[in-house]
Amino acid sequence: MVVRENFDNKLQELEEKMKAMSNLAISSLEMSFEAFKTKDVELALKVIEEDEVVDDLEIEINHFIIWLMAKEQPVARDLRRIIGALKISSEIERIADFGVNIAKSTIKIGNSNSLVEITSLEKMKDISITMLQKGLLSFLNGDITIAKEVGELDDEVDKYSGELYKTITSYLKEHPEETDHLVQLLLINRYLERTADHITNIAESAAYLIKGQMYDLNS
Amino acid sequence: MVVRENFDNKLQELEEKMKAMSNLAISSLEMSFEAFKTKDVELALKVIEEDEVVDDLEIEINHFIIWLMAKEQPVARDLRRIIGALKISSEIERIADFGVNIAKSTIKIGNSNSLVEITSLEKMKDISITMLQKGLLSFLNGDITIAKEVGELDDEVDKYSGELYKTITSYLKEHPEETDHLVQLLLINRYLERTADHITNIAESAAYLIKGQMYDLNS
Repeated sequence: MVVRENFDNKLQELEEKMKAMSNLAISSLEMSFEAFKTKDVELALKVIEEDEVVDDLEIEINHFIIWLMAKEQPVARDLRRIIGALKISSEIERIADFGVNIAKSTIKIGNSNSLVEITSLEKMKDISITMLQKGLLSFLNGDITIAKEVGELDDEVDKYSGELYKTITSYLKEHPEETDHLVQLLLINRYLERTADHITNIAESAAYLIKGQMYDLNS
Repeated sequence: MVVRENFDNKLQELEEKMKAMSNLAISSLEMSFEAFKTKDVELALKVIEEDEVVDDLEIEINHFIIWLMAKEQPVARDLRRIIGALKISSEIERIADFGVNIAKSTIKIGNSNSLVEITSLEKMKDISITMLQKGLLSFLNGDITIAKEVGELDDEVDKYSGELYKTITSYLKEHPEETDHLVQLLLINRYLERTADHITNIAESAAYLIKGQMYDLNS
């Protein structure tokens, strides 16, 4: 039993690292969106700089997993759990990258202004953060109900994104002088839609761990 | 030695599956680009349909890897190789998804026309395919020189993409009536740039296997 206890401790250590990484990704999204809303280029630059911490943590998690596998030779559910952690940490790294993308768009937007209606971007950001919290929780707790909720929230984000795409492109036709600004808004819309997709992948990894089969929660 | 031989056979089986998956991704990019160039909506729909084969192959590879790990309990370089295969198959699946994205843009473009100069899109597609072939080869052969070449080719794609972004947005300012069409071209430009990024991740996984440390070939 000491062996098992030791392994469980290591698994818990791994899960703590994943939680830390998820919190960093949430902070990247929150900070980059704040920078976008307030046109705060300094804050946007900070998001870009701090992304290195997420990248380093992903590498650390990869090393930890390879070490843990070699040392403990896990099988069955333990093995699926560790493979899941590996896949999920790679998704979280990409989610933080979308924060960086939003920050870069913020810098390109600079001080330019537009009257196009984009309040749904903030809703998409908020839903994405809820999704990330739920996605990780469904993995950590092995809760399939929460994993399915993530899929439903992704549908909401897709709906907002599709509507906003139409709003921005219609507005662009009337205001070609705002092209540079509006194209960045189209990109931010896409980044948030993609963020939600990557989080849905996390929920799918959770579902795979729980049920032992793949789900397509995007459909 | 029989045990080792058996394991090597399994590894080879895994690598054959990865090659098959890579060929499917290349075919997705080639076909979707052909559909885009010739405005062939039927062909675009075929790309979207056939993506399921890539998704299924990724799931098959995942199952195979989990089975192989549980059965053979690999360590050291063998373990890194299998983890690399897991990560790379997930990148290849996403590369095929960009083919699907190009196909979807093709359908949205429909029969509309534009005179904007976009010949560099085809160059980006061709370079990406070369990159994918080299990226997989660097992993399979453990060749760090080829992995570094992938990083250099990614710089070329980034350069084309940056220039084309400027070309299309400048043209858009003068031709707002072409907004729908041009926004899809901007998206295709981005898909190809992202395709090359994901392939660079493959080369980074190869470099990690070879040298035992992470490289950032994007920088």
